[in-house]
Amino acid sequence: MSTSSPLRAPIKARGDKLPSTMRALVKEKAGPGLSLKQVPVPRIGPTDVLVSVRKAGICGTDGHIWDWDKWSQGRVHPPVIVGHEFMGTVAAVGDAVRNVAVGDRVAAEGHISCGACLLCRTGQEYICEHVQILGIDRDGAFADYVAVPEHNIWKLDPAVPDEWAAVFDPLGNAVHTVMTAGVSAKSVVITGVGSIGLMAIPVARAAGAARLIAIDVNPQKLALAKTLGADEVFDARTPGLRETVYALTGGHGADVLLEMSGSGAAINQGLSMVRNGGRAALLGLPSDNVSMNLAENIIFKGLTVLGINGRKMFETWYQMQALVTAGRVDLSPIITHVVPLERYAEAFELLKSGQAVKIVIDVNEGEP
Amino acid sequence: MSTSSPLRAPIKARGDKLPSTMRALVKEKAGPGLSLKQVPVPRIGPTDVLVSVRKAGICGTDGHIWDWDKWSQGRVHPPVIVGHEFMGTVAAVGDAVRNVAVGDRVAAEGHISCGACLLCRTGQEYICEHVQILGIDRDGAFADYVAVPEHNIWKLDPAVPDEWAAVFDPLGNAVHTVMTAGVSAKSVVITGVGSIGLMAIPVARAAGAARLIAIDVNPQKLALAKTLGADEVFDARTPGLRETVYALTGGHGADVLLEMSGSGAAINQGLSMVRNGGRAALLGLPSDNVSMNLAENIIFKGLTVLGINGRKMFETWYQMQALVTAGRVDLSPIITHVVPLERYAEAFELLKSGQAVKIVIDVNEGEP
Amino acid sequence: MSTSSPLRAPIKARGDKLPSTMRALVKEKAGPGLSLKQVPVPRIGPTDVLVSVRKAGICGTDGHIWDWDKWSQGRVHPPVIVGHEFMGTVAAVGDAVRNVAVGDRVAAEGHISCGACLLCRTGQEYICEHVQILGIDRDGAFADYVAVPEHNIWKLDPAVPDEWAAVFDPLGNAVHTVMTAGVSAKSVVITGVGSIGLMAIPVARAAGAARLIAIDVNPQKLALAKTLGADEVFDARTPGLRETVYALTGGHGADVLLEMSGSGAAINQGLSMVRNGGRAALLGLPSDNVSMNLAENIIFKGLTVLGINGRKMFETWYQMQALVTAGRVDLSPIITHVVPLERYAEAFELLKSGQAVKIVIDVNEGEP
Amino acid sequence: MSTSSPLRAPIKARGDKLPSTMRALVKEKAGPGLSLKQVPVPRIGPTDVLVSVRKAGICGTDGHIWDWDKWSQGRVHPPVIVGHEFMGTVAAVGDAVRNVAVGDRVAAEGHISCGACLLCRTGQEYICEHVQILGIDRDGAFADYVAVPEHNIWKLDPAVPDEWAAVFDPLGNAVHTVMTAGVSAKSVVITGVGSIGLMAIPVARAAGAARLIAIDVNPQKLALAKTLGADEVFDARTPGLRETVYALTGGHGADVLLEMSGSGAAINQGLSMVRNGGRAALLGLPSDNVSMNLAENIIFKGLTVLGINGRKMFETWYQMQALVTAGRVDLSPIITHVVPLERYAEAFELLKSGQAVKIVIDVNEGEP
Repeated sequence: MSTSSPLRAPIKARGDKLPSTMRALVKEKAGPGLSLKQVPVPRIGPTDVLVSVRKAGICGTDGHIWDWDKWSQGRVHPPVIVGHEFMGTVAAVGDAVRNVAVGDRVAAEGHISCGACLLCRTGQEYICEHVQILGIDRDGAFADYVAVPEHNIWKLDPAVPDEWAAVFDPLGNAVHTVMTAGVSAKSVVITGVGSIGLMAIPVARAAGAARLIAIDVNPQKLALAKTLGADEVFDARTPGLRETVYALTGGHGADVLLEMSGSGAAINQGLSMVRNGGRAALLGLPSDNVSMNLAENIIFKGLTVLGINGRKMFETWYQMQALVTAGRVDLSPIITHVVPLERYAEAFELLKSGQAVKIVIDVNEGEP
Repeated sequence: MSTSSPLRAPIKARGDKLPSTMRALVKEKAGPGLSLKQVPVPRIGPTDVLVSVRKAGICGTDGHIWDWDKWSQGRVHPPVIVGHEFMGTVAAVGDAVRNVAVGDRVAAEGHISCGACLLCRTGQEYICEHVQILGIDRDGAFADYVAVPEHNIWKLDPAVPDEWAAVFDPLGNAVHTVMTAGVSAKSVVITGVGSIGLMAIPVARAAGAARLIAIDVNPQKLALAKTLGADEVFDARTPGLRETVYALTGGHGADVLLEMSGSGAAINQGLSMVRNGGRAALLGLPSDNVSMNLAENIIFKGLTVLGINGRKMFETWYQMQALVTAGRVDLSPIITHVVPLERYAEAFELLKSGQAVKIVIDVNEGEP
Repeated sequence: MSTSSPLRAPIKARGDKLPSTMRALVKEKAGPGLSLKQVPVPRIGPTDVLVSVRKAGICGTDGHIWDWDKWSQGRVHPPVIVGHEFMGTVAAVGDAVRNVAVGDRVAAEGHISCGACLLCRTGQEYICEHVQILGIDRDGAFADYVAVPEHNIWKLDPAVPDEWAAVFDPLGNAVHTVMTAGVSAKSVVITGVGSIGLMAIPVARAAGAARLIAIDVNPQKLALAKTLGADEVFDARTPGLRETVYALTGGHGADVLLEMSGSGAAINQGLSMVRNGGRAALLGLPSDNVSMNLAENIIFKGLTVLGINGRKMFETWYQMQALVTAGRVDLSPIITHVVPLERYAEAFELLKSGQAVKIVIDVNEGEP
Repeated sequence: MSTSSPLRAPIKARGDKLPSTMRALVKEKAGPGLSLKQVPVPRIGPTDVLVSVRKAGICGTDGHIWDWDKWSQGRVHPPVIVGHEFMGTVAAVGDAVRNVAVGDRVAAEGHISCGACLLCRTGQEYICEHVQILGIDRDGAFADYVAVPEHNIWKLDPAVPDEWAAVFDPLGNAVHTVMTAGVSAKSVVITGVGSIGLMAIPVARAAGAARLIAIDVNPQKLALAKTLGADEVFDARTPGLRETVYALTGGHGADVLLEMSGSGAAINQGLSMVRNGGRAALLGLPSDNVSMNLAENIIFKGLTVLGINGRKMFETWYQMQALVTAGRVDLSPIITHVVPLERYAEAFELLKSGQAVKIVIDVNEGEP
């Protein structure tokens, strides 16, 4: 990087408004919990953008990092600022930034791709071989400012509300899953209606699903699934559920499975409900190996099973923008809580209580 | 075929109800017009089904045959009973029929495929090399009875109204076009909103189109297009229309073109509105050669142009059934007139007047 | 066609050559072994064809039926004539048969589809919901005559040798797997080089694979794999094999996995070798559940996993014909033994010894 | 990296080898001809790379620019250095270049994409809305040095000979066309066997084409097409040629058309030879509108017509590399002449004479 500070020019352009320190929710060291601290504002390189964060979504992953579970212990290297779902306004841009300007209202893709591997070079950077995730592998967005490459910036249509824009990351998971599976005029089973599974319901409806069956073990989530447009909702433990799904789908089984739970039992149950020649999109991440009847559930059926990761960069983002600005997807019922950054502890309590669906952190009131 | 008459068994099963003659709308000889005549009830072979017709749709093609236009003169060999869109109940089945029974409420695919060519043997019989079309190449459905191969029969879900089932053939054109193009979360231009173009509007909406722009020269049809769910409608002759469409689609052009007019001018205008990398599905049949700027409109853009013919047998039919029974597509505004068979002359007058959208012939009240 | 019974006419046409009984290799009752017996020549229905069998391939499945393994005990209902890979000449045709004639030289698809289910009605009859397999669910081809529906008949190009035509069924498995995976200009790992895995090597080469890596535990099969065109062959137990495959594929992993072993270990090893965004086609049938690391091997990678069953009817057959008649695939090194029907016991000994690759039973010398 | 100007550091790193001026073949002003001149070495920006050119291919487009035809007059703005097919070694890199180093042996994609439009953001930058082409819209490669964005650099495998690497641009056109059409186990008609059409022959063979039929009006090119692997070659003016092609393809027509001529007559002839449900990839650019029978040749047939532009960035490059390094494609017979830069006039004479197929300009012997 150059010796002339990349931040200086934008700062001038903005009237020297950038402070030297900021608030940030930090995983300080190995162990449970997060701390709200005063830390230096991130420096940016020539192709980076500094975003003044306005709203940020809490992801289940953030809860795992708080808890310092086994996965976090293996992946996260403190100290690191947490948070990867966010929106805000551009506060500064690097010297070589060409298409983003200070003041732009933006969200950002949280997967930082290397730009050089086979996947990045063939339009599939969402599965980059050397991906780094914001708020996990590098400093994230539960802070007044976050630095991201220009490449990851998504300029927001004015019609997208701040709180919705803050959760474009998980909405993108839902859209990527639905669109890759392909649901137009099809019967669809969704296993797991956490926040992404719930988002998948209006998305799949908008994308043309003819019949939507949602399965989970949480009655409140199932009730919300129904409100959001599921035709039928079932407790996964209902006896004879596979037969019920077959009966609801003309005796053939569902055309499509959207697996959003990561539960081995749900994956097997879901696959058993798909018809011959159907498609199953797996988004939920099992924490352990899953014992699978490949012969019966995949091979004889001639199934297509699709591993889904992240969001297509940036096809999924265009799809989100199209669906949201056309008024085809309403996220209001899913964003159940908005909590100021200072009350982050309450927000994480809520998350763990299972009472909330999607919690948005209000970092700053706005005003670019 | 066997010496035992294929009709005898079913007749007995139904209590000898089958008459020997029936009413039929016949193109008797080369020249304009059609005649309602008494003719023999068709005989069926071992793998055929005899349907007692209840309702039948009038297609633009039927108008061409009435007029005895150039195309008709080259294709149609009188005498022939006209009509290919219909529904009714099964009155008799051949000896080798296995999956259809007397009394079944059915519609039928009007493309009779050979079953032996490359296309028929590879799941693409809708583009069979030796296709015969009902009511054009062989006796059709504007009659009390029509004979079709068992293979072509589609058993109707009770939730599908008679009048809608009668127009599953053109609805299938619309569904095939929309589904082959792929419209989920996409911006879509439809050129030509005759009855199939109009049907394509609710279908494309149901299939997930984010923005629908309809173009035609008929203000009434455009008004109906708006009612049916088009976001914007335009007279094709509006100055600067291409630029308007670009402006409405983020400056990129439309993701998808559904060409339903068959007009050379519309095809070129439509293609000019599609974005780089977009898809264009051509259903409308130009009567003459079209002069095309392939370099600008197709090659540089990297477009995919899809010729659309008939309906996928029977994927399109499953899709229609799914969309209609899920309540995602409403055909009521499109079926503007229902006319008894005896008043066929008025029906064809209406067709030519341009005042009607879809006219259904009421052949029999029902009750097989 | 004649008014008489289905079998009589052809007999007359062929000079009364059809006998009343024939030789057949029969699973007579629950338990190991097969018996060569004299049994009645099968009768055919109006849409069936009787084939005078000339050559028939022995499949691994036939070995399982001989052994009366757990799978056979659950699926096979004696008495039944075994054998599903064959070719011969048409000896008789049913009354309603339209496109096949006595004397035609033919092979046949062994999956008898129902013709009425969703899959059969949408061009995917190879995964018919009610499929019956020749020689397993109904009388098969290790016999002088076998009856199959006209629909299943494949007329042979004169350029296809008898012995190759006799193994179009397993060749079709290989072609279906390769073509569904898509291998043009790609690096391909094949796990399991039994006879189908070995066939997949020249097929994948012909279909454009740029690099072929074969993995098995049988050194003789691996040597043959190399002869047939594999670029590299490896014992599956080689330490560091995954890293070796990554090194051979530019550090990315293989573009495509063709899983032909059915071994859980091979499936997991194979999936671990596929690059992000790659495709894995699973043909081999595991006898038990497989414990899988879905997160690492499928979901994070964004893999597409394809269950493969049978052969596309009849797209795969056209592909086989094209590849074989164009001289792009040579099966000679794979068909290691031809054994007369009477010496069937030796043939099954050979099969179990692991010394043979593909064994063809010489049922009749030809000329029906 | 240093605070100094982009060019200085690499110069130092390479021992001050970079001169201030260089030889370049320049279109100086509107009108026919090109001039070999001494011009300044191009300066590079922070994300650019300066390549010392070793070999460069002459494209038909370069001939059009020499001739100053109608297209050139509308598109090219002199003065500009011509040439867009090349390879060489990296002489200098900009400050922000991360993955390319001085000394790397490279080729480069000649389409400079904007990086910001819908297409660039969705993995389709080869059809970027604001593409600039090297040697047409900005200074090109018939020169000692050429500047290109790092993004466009393709590092060469040592197994690729210099002269082949110099024509990766047109080879990429051929590979993109063949791969987008999909030819495995298919019958393929190629209309137009100029240098790209000729390259398409070994590429299509390698990619699995079962039967290749080449059509042109130049007997020498047709003879070479045969040498390169075409099964049949025909003069386009042969009476009954459409019927001949149908006879050669089992009566169905060809599965695939690769249109490489840009001739309206060839496009129509080629489309008339494709079977129902087939695919046609159009690469050749017609200079005028083409009058097309859309109904017969595209719509009734259910054809898929694919506009092909440039090369997929960089999927096509990976495919080229895979095919060439695996020894599956041999370009030797196609590169008929190598001419030193000083004798450029002779090279362009050869090009216009039609005696050459592919001419490579030897700019520098190697070793920058």
